[in-house]
Amino acid sequence: MRFIGVPVSAIRVTIWNEFVHERSTPAVAKIYPQGIHEAIRAFLSTDSEISVTTATLDEPEHGLTVERLANTDVLLWWGHAKHDEVSDEVVARVHARVNTGMGIVVLHSGHYSKIFKRLMGTTCAFRWREAGERERVWIVNPAHEIAAGLAESFVIPQSEMYGEPFTIPEPDEVVFISWFEGGDVLRSGCCWTRGAGRVFYFSPGHELYPIYHQPEVLRVIRNAVHWARPRGATANVPRNVPIAEAAETIAGQGLQLHDSTGNLLSK
Amino acid sequence: MRFIGVPVSAIRVTIWNEFVHERSTPAVAKIYPQGIHEAIRAFLSTDSEISVTTATLDEPEHGLTVERLANTDVLLWWGHAKHDEVSDEVVARVHARVNTGMGIVVLHSGHYSKIFKRLMGTTCAFRWREAGERERVWIVNPAHEIAAGLAESFVIPQSEMYGEPFTIPEPDEVVFISWFEGGDVLRSGCCWTRGAGRVFYFSPGHELYPIYHQPEVLRVIRNAVHWARPRGATANVPRNVPIAEAAETIAGQGLQLHDSTGNLLSK
Amino acid sequence: MRFIGVPVSAIRVTIWNEFVHERSTPAVAKIYPQGIHEAIRAFLSTDSEISVTTATLDEPEHGLTVERLANTDVLLWWGHAKHDEVSDEVVARVHARVNTGMGIVVLHSGHYSKIFKRLMGTTCAFRWREAGERERVWIVNPAHEIAAGLAESFVIPQSEMYGEPFTIPEPDEVVFISWFEGGDVLRSGCCWTRGAGRVFYFSPGHELYPIYHQPEVLRVIRNAVHWARPRGATANVPRNVPIAEAAETIAGQGLQLHDSTGNLLSK
Amino acid sequence: MRFIGVPVSAIRVTIWNEFVHERSTPAVAKIYPQGIHEAIRAFLSTDSEISVTTATLDEPEHGLTVERLANTDVLLWWGHAKHDEVSDEVVARVHARVNTGMGIVVLHSGHYSKIFKRLMGTTCAFRWREAGERERVWIVNPAHEIAAGLAESFVIPQSEMYGEPFTIPEPDEVVFISWFEGGDVLRSGCCWTRGAGRVFYFSPGHELYPIYHQPEVLRVIRNAVHWARPRGATANVPRNVPIAEAAETIAGQGLQLHDSTGNLLSK
Repeated sequence: MRFIGVPVSAIRVTIWNEFVHERSTPAVAKIYPQGIHEAIRAFLSTDSEISVTTATLDEPEHGLTVERLANTDVLLWWGHAKHDEVSDEVVARVHARVNTGMGIVVLHSGHYSKIFKRLMGTTCAFRWREAGERERVWIVNPAHEIAAGLAESFVIPQSEMYGEPFTIPEPDEVVFISWFEGGDVLRSGCCWTRGAGRVFYFSPGHELYPIYHQPEVLRVIRNAVHWARPRGATANVPRNVPIAEAAETIAGQGLQLHDSTGNLLSK
Repeated sequence: MRFIGVPVSAIRVTIWNEFVHERSTPAVAKIYPQGIHEAIRAFLSTDSEISVTTATLDEPEHGLTVERLANTDVLLWWGHAKHDEVSDEVVARVHARVNTGMGIVVLHSGHYSKIFKRLMGTTCAFRWREAGERERVWIVNPAHEIAAGLAESFVIPQSEMYGEPFTIPEPDEVVFISWFEGGDVLRSGCCWTRGAGRVFYFSPGHELYPIYHQPEVLRVIRNAVHWARPRGATANVPRNVPIAEAAETIAGQGLQLHDSTGNLLSK
Repeated sequence: MRFIGVPVSAIRVTIWNEFVHERSTPAVAKIYPQGIHEAIRAFLSTDSEISVTTATLDEPEHGLTVERLANTDVLLWWGHAKHDEVSDEVVARVHARVNTGMGIVVLHSGHYSKIFKRLMGTTCAFRWREAGERERVWIVNPAHEIAAGLAESFVIPQSEMYGEPFTIPEPDEVVFISWFEGGDVLRSGCCWTRGAGRVFYFSPGHELYPIYHQPEVLRVIRNAVHWARPRGATANVPRNVPIAEAAETIAGQGLQLHDSTGNLLSK
Repeated sequence: MRFIGVPVSAIRVTIWNEFVHERSTPAVAKIYPQGIHEAIRAFLSTDSEISVTTATLDEPEHGLTVERLANTDVLLWWGHAKHDEVSDEVVARVHARVNTGMGIVVLHSGHYSKIFKRLMGTTCAFRWREAGERERVWIVNPAHEIAAGLAESFVIPQSEMYGEPFTIPEPDEVVFISWFEGGDVLRSGCCWTRGAGRVFYFSPGHELYPIYHQPEVLRVIRNAVHWARPRGATANVPRNVPIAEAAETIAGQGLQLHDSTGNLLSK
């Protein structure tokens, strides 16, 4: 096997964090003194193929300006207590950007964020319990890029239980399924595509436990960033195709409700 | 083969129509003097397993009250010029009802309705042309219930072209693909599931041509109603499962951010 | 809600069982004195919409003659020790029949049968353990027909562990995921379509435990029979379409390697 | 945007060609004097990330020895007249290798090869016509890696018609849909996963027309090679997990049919 050098542009990642619990709850602050986003940033920064910035709820426009999103290849999303305070305008902007190719990795309680629900079209609900119980994450699809470098399963010693039924659309691919000490299961790593953008949901990450300091969890997030990077072009639609520009030569027949540029003549 | 009698409850269908073009454009009124919804109703009423009512944009709450939706098994949706005038509240209500099991059949220009975009999570856009050209609808999956009773393909003599790329999530099942005289193709009959509800999109149906008088098209709609009827139960989520009610006996460990009923102790 | 009478033809079910362990192992014989197939038959016979027969390995052609299969709507398949003794000819026959619309419900160790592997195109392998441990089957998709009448989950007190990774193609729909006492999980109820036929795999059913006497398990099988029944037509392919029969008028251009009936002129 | 250097191993491609028509039919020989495989090889060799070899039917073991396959990351497959002469042993070998991670790109009449049918589990049939008619390939999913660098659609001036219904399992992703002059359509570029391996089918490529000299077609094949390269690990199954090695501590209960290494005690 030979090795060759190829130029690759860095994947531009923005980690978005609500950043509330870390400042209001001492037990959380102890684990993530700079916030969950900084713990993840510190790890992703060690990957030379990734360039990473962060954004939080309390910044203007939640830090997610048009320009910032235009320069983001993959967005990470962690939120919990303040989902409702994320402005609808910013959610619409993120949603549109995913559809034009930005990847999004939704973490833990982000399952209930406005953006995830909007991308899924479902309620994204499940059963849950905060008991500090053991979670074992099984790799269902070891050939998937998001499972690269992982063993057959890994354990999160203390985790919040999220359990089925999880009201998501049937995933395009399920990468992980979790087992919980209390008797529950969850599709804990799931992939979808929305427009030109890829979506990955990964459930581990309760703020009261040091889950984002765990190597396997960080590896999954890094893998997901690589998987979710933009791959191709955005569809050039909606678009009216005038008769004169049809692929095959045709003549217009019958009445029309639209003018030659596609605008409704009357409503 | 023997035949047996089984009791079956009728499928309760509500046909929702914007009902604008039929009153503002004489050419449309000529084809659908009572409105598109009435043309479809007349046909569905011949099916003894279906009970059908209609609702239109100008009714209070667009005719889609909480009670009406609670008593609807399958909703049909036709809209075009006035998508923006459908209230967000009613859209949210329909969306929630689909997730609890109501089927929805989205017709033609309904691809750009608020409700369809909300269910899909994408822009639901495509290329289009109003040239009265010939469309041939191919049955890609003849074993599918929605294709029952159809031949290998059928022709719509004059149709509006809707062409790929169509920015929908990869369908669970593609039943029809259309060929257009002008050189285009479209996945014209597509299935998804959202929560407990089934979603079918069927593209033929331009208001300027007598498409909803065509037997094959009406047959597709009737088949889709049968396919989209509710099948099972709604997930009982979100729901906190207290430690004492865990499936396996466990003891709570570590700190908690929520009280025993699942409410956040502080934000 | 009103009720109406409709004629429905009974679903013709054939239960195929290897029928080895029940005759060679006293512990199994005690649980299924007439064989696993008879236990399932006794239950399915209580459903007036189902007519049921059985077939076993030691019958001529394993009981699966051309005529028998032609008159079967849904085939159940239980095998374990003698997968290799099922003739390739019968497997090819069953495979062809599924593709023309017969449903198939593959049970437990049938995951490793020739027919299931042939339908899937993968190795259909997993990790496993025979420890009589507790299995909890979670309903992931309560709206699915196969989950009808079940609670949120049900327990199999003693079960054989089948654990991920399970090398199947991504299912069209996952209905059940199982939790095991020993720390494992499995996608234990999965749906696919192959040609005009539906395929369901359901993992519980170890011969050493009375699993096919358990009401929830029997209910799943009955539901699966209803779900897997034929729905529509078989595609009329392969088929040469002569130029003169093209949907659109075209003239043949250039050279041809085939004659007008589609046969290769030379190889 | 910054660029960085990363080491990448070349993708090892083997192009398999039946290589019959090019030697028996002068009209084909004129277009592909060295064979279809050499035309494709010449193009792929211009990609520094790909290393390419070829294999043909008449070589010992059809050129697909155990060692050759072990050193192949992506296999291309073109066959037509001699599908039946490919040995079952080699087919089983290729099938197993796909399941352990080798990608496979099946071209044109390869839809009817033993290996493609075995991977799909269906009949892989369709309607067809050899009329030299125009085919327009539409990019349904422009964000997909296999569509990279292509315009909205491209035309094959003379093509063999392959038309729906195409009896394949619902693809994981449809990248291309073709329009034919004679009124037909086809899902002409489709993706699946089987085990650890990726499968892509691409329909254009009739041997009588210079289709593999067309830049867009070659670009699709090159993109498909990149897409189909192995991504991760192979599942370590089947495997017995003794009670002592269970993830959670459990005690064996009840009877067992297998010994501690997982072998059946009796059949």
